[in-house]
Amino acid sequence: MNQITSVNNPLIIETAKLKIKKYRDRQKAFLVEGYHLVEESFRLGLLTKVFALKADDLEMFSCPGYLVNEAIIAKLSTTKSPQPIIGVVAMPKTENTRFKRILLLDRLQDPGNLGTLIRSAAALGMDAIIASSDTVDCYNEKVIRSTQGALFRIPILYRDLTKEIGKLKEKGFTIYGTGLKGGIKPKPVEKQDRYALVLGNEAQGVSPEINRLVDRILMIPMQNGVESLNVGVAGGILMYCLNQDQ
Amino acid sequence: MNQITSVNNPLIIETAKLKIKKYRDRQKAFLVEGYHLVEESFRLGLLTKVFALKADDLEMFSCPGYLVNEAIIAKLSTTKSPQPIIGVVAMPKTENTRFKRILLLDRLQDPGNLGTLIRSAAALGMDAIIASSDTVDCYNEKVIRSTQGALFRIPILYRDLTKEIGKLKEKGFTIYGTGLKGGIKPKPVEKQDRYALVLGNEAQGVSPEINRLVDRILMIPMQNGVESLNVGVAGGILMYCLNQDQ
Repeated sequence: MNQITSVNNPLIIETAKLKIKKYRDRQKAFLVEGYHLVEESFRLGLLTKVFALKADDLEMFSCPGYLVNEAIIAKLSTTKSPQPIIGVVAMPKTENTRFKRILLLDRLQDPGNLGTLIRSAAALGMDAIIASSDTVDCYNEKVIRSTQGALFRIPILYRDLTKEIGKLKEKGFTIYGTGLKGGIKPKPVEKQDRYALVLGNEAQGVSPEINRLVDRILMIPMQNGVESLNVGVAGGILMYCLNQDQ
Repeated sequence: MNQITSVNNPLIIETAKLKIKKYRDRQKAFLVEGYHLVEESFRLGLLTKVFALKADDLEMFSCPGYLVNEAIIAKLSTTKSPQPIIGVVAMPKTENTRFKRILLLDRLQDPGNLGTLIRSAAALGMDAIIASSDTVDCYNEKVIRSTQGALFRIPILYRDLTKEIGKLKEKGFTIYGTGLKGGIKPKPVEKQDRYALVLGNEAQGVSPEINRLVDRILMIPMQNGVESLNVGVAGGILMYCLNQDQ
């Protein structure tokens, strides 16, 4: 165990950079806060460093552990009331060869929505998430918080969605777009062995270019003059329906 | 049209108090920000006063309008970048005699979740929401923002849930609780003409006392070791399933 007492320690300065996407991408690592996420990333062999206020909290981890003070935790944390333990986690490696049920995200912008969708996709039986390159970063701390620990339970890739849909179609995937009008209800859709569901940006929905590539557009009928559902809710309903035995 | 230039004007001081629940309850009124909500509340006859930066924006409303400056808008607003128009809206009157499909909320605490559930409940065909007295206030500005304009599209009442469930059962309602274990899937549930669905607190779920009163407990099967769904997502899936024709 090592002890660090200064917020200007080079390791602390380097680690705090992981709060910024550019450095996360460069170092292929991100920060998690709190016992639950630190333990889960350790269990999966992804925890590379851990910083804690109490020496006891460091003992259970075989990676390098650092005893630090509250000023250092505050520097590494993105919240006003930080938890007493913060971990550096290696981004999980993802291969997209054997997925059968894929959630495609077209320019999602809200971290809370992305986090909720990651949690729902894992819970409702999707195999992977492929997000357009301009979707909000899944290692953003607000996203991580909204996943409620489900971040490590489903692979997440960032790709060019147009190209990815082309590849999936070649492999025999059925591609479902989503829209507010002119689609079909998810209920009578026959169950597909391999499919991808596209959800779109909060304000604009799935882009017309993407919806032109899909096999079918799904819509959820709405009442009382409400024009749209939250994308996390719509995604939950559609994934649940598509993965149910009819 | 009247002009107000001082943030210390008595009407502004009185109106700004509506940012606090106690004063909203006392005055039976709340604040909405932005053209969309001001116009919608006016259309429904609920707008009682309007404050705007531009005289043009006041002309279309028949209620008292006040031309104000940015300092006053900032005082009335709860956001960092306020919209140029703010309205005072009378709480809609609600009667619970003819509802057939009711969403019951047991101690919901997160404003974003409540707002999303209001939006989903209206969109998915519920007739009313009855929340326990200790559920977060639906006229909280974060709730209003999350409803995305659906706030006026469904009646919301605050009541003692235990008593309310008793009354609903006497009227022949089927009451569905929700849980993570030991429940049935929503899909094979036969469609009910009159029913109420109970959703619970984010951390604790539906309280055991309430779940003891219900006819059936519904659960959504989960995979990949995920333990729970966001309550807004779970509520969306259940409301969609219960309101579908089988």
